[in-house]
Amino acid sequence: MIYWLDLFGTCVFAMSGALAAWDKKMYHDIFGVSFTAFVTSIGGGTMRDLILGVRPVWVGDGNYIIAIGTGVLITILFRARLLRFRRSIFFFDTVGIGFYTVIGLQKALLYGVHPWAAVILGMISAIFGGVIRDMMVNEIPLIFSRQIYATACLAGAALYIGLRHLGVDGDWNMIASILLVIGIRLTALKKGWSLPYLQKH
Amino acid sequence: MIYWLDLFGTCVFAMSGALAAWDKKMYHDIFGVSFTAFVTSIGGGTMRDLILGVRPVWVGDGNYIIAIGTGVLITILFRARLLRFRRSIFFFDTVGIGFYTVIGLQKALLYGVHPWAAVILGMISAIFGGVIRDMMVNEIPLIFSRQIYATACLAGAALYIGLRHLGVDGDWNMIASILLVIGIRLTALKKGWSLPYLQKH
Amino acid sequence: MIYWLDLFGTCVFAMSGALAAWDKKMYHDIFGVSFTAFVTSIGGGTMRDLILGVRPVWVGDGNYIIAIGTGVLITILFRARLLRFRRSIFFFDTVGIGFYTVIGLQKALLYGVHPWAAVILGMISAIFGGVIRDMMVNEIPLIFSRQIYATACLAGAALYIGLRHLGVDGDWNMIASILLVIGIRLTALKKGWSLPYLQKH
Repeated sequence: MIYWLDLFGTCVFAMSGALAAWDKKMYHDIFGVSFTAFVTSIGGGTMRDLILGVRPVWVGDGNYIIAIGTGVLITILFRARLLRFRRSIFFFDTVGIGFYTVIGLQKALLYGVHPWAAVILGMISAIFGGVIRDMMVNEIPLIFSRQIYATACLAGAALYIGLRHLGVDGDWNMIASILLVIGIRLTALKKGWSLPYLQKH
Repeated sequence: MIYWLDLFGTCVFAMSGALAAWDKKMYHDIFGVSFTAFVTSIGGGTMRDLILGVRPVWVGDGNYIIAIGTGVLITILFRARLLRFRRSIFFFDTVGIGFYTVIGLQKALLYGVHPWAAVILGMISAIFGGVIRDMMVNEIPLIFSRQIYATACLAGAALYIGLRHLGVDGDWNMIASILLVIGIRLTALKKGWSLPYLQKH
Repeated sequence: MIYWLDLFGTCVFAMSGALAAWDKKMYHDIFGVSFTAFVTSIGGGTMRDLILGVRPVWVGDGNYIIAIGTGVLITILFRARLLRFRRSIFFFDTVGIGFYTVIGLQKALLYGVHPWAAVILGMISAIFGGVIRDMMVNEIPLIFSRQIYATACLAGAALYIGLRHLGVDGDWNMIASILLVIGIRLTALKKGWSLPYLQKH
């Protein structure tokens, strides 16, 4: 189940990378779009796995590359129609970062990492691919746009560690933490929340 | 034999990095030129080895650092004359990416990677150093310039996996795949081929 | 002793990252400042450890994350006063890169790396965090500003390898090498030294 969700998330992240590249003139050809899609979808997990000293999952399992290829293909064939579904894509992305945060955190804990480092690695799993995507298309990374984005991941990861400390069972904990990420992200956007602004003086 | 070719390739990539840095004002001093040369020549292999979980080869063998130093020295001493040989350098670079693609692919297969991931890792070995070089000197990476560059590496890597599947012997397979990379790259440049352009609408 | 110095260095590098981010409008919120502080302080050691194939130290020891958090907190609370101490911060930074160079070099040698690669890894430990910091706030990395910065680290690392080859005891060697880094950096700044400029023609 989690395996299929992970493949689905890989495909959604690939679509978000392909769409971002397509909007930029310099990445207009098929290679540029595919390469950006690839880096966006595997970036976060690969960075987490390199720090953990584990081989990234896509290296040993061809299905991840199929999922990315599918995402690129869908984008190329149905781009105009996809743009009409921007809200759905935004929703998938929000669910995706919640899910990736918790999965990344769990994997980090599994490999004996300090809980605080696990929180950071969970957040990195969720946001790092998008950071590279934004840097490649020369935009200020979304995580620095004063929206509540990475902060929602951090909060979800912290909740998971807290509940785990209190002995809450894994599945319920996972669901609660993912829902917290989604809830914060959606509410923040609706209410226009942003992080405290640091005064120059 | 392959060891010496690898050292020679390291030296050629270092020269290409040093020349690129020299053309930019901000990298004009000896350190900037050497650093760019170093990153250009070891970048692709190091990224591949980190993903494979292997220690990069230059870490344990001083000859690679000698090769890079030689490339930098040649560039500093004979820059004016080197520019007259731009066509030779282009030729070396083309042979180099063909060679690096197949070597990188073989190393990835040796470490038990999925064949499709091996194709991607072969391409990364060949192009990643140049991508960092272009990012450091603030140019749009060559791989996104709509020339057939990374695509030639991909095609060569795919041919190798295909022939290997058919049971073709390693050495002949290697030669055929390298020639395919070189052939596509040279023909594409001569005929002005480029990848299909994706329409905005 | 070295452990506490390392934590102190982590805190100082975090402050330098937080200050740099704060000066840029786009990183003005708490997350942007903290994230830049984090990457600045752990970047160099993490890159070294990934290349060595070792798990980075902050992953297993929560004190490093406390040190970074303390650096961020000090910066947020006392920023105006900190700016009056720019000279002290510069001094800490100079001591810090000397210290990090030698610690990084020793760790690399411990893991059986070629001495020349160890020199490069020592330099990377000291400067890489600052390079990422400068790239994140969109400035030309300090190491390319024609100041003697990375070169001082290289010289200190080379001295350490040379003295070690001559059989000089570890502690004295360490002190001498750190002092060389500090001495070169301070003298170069005072006398306005820079590296030889490479002529275009």
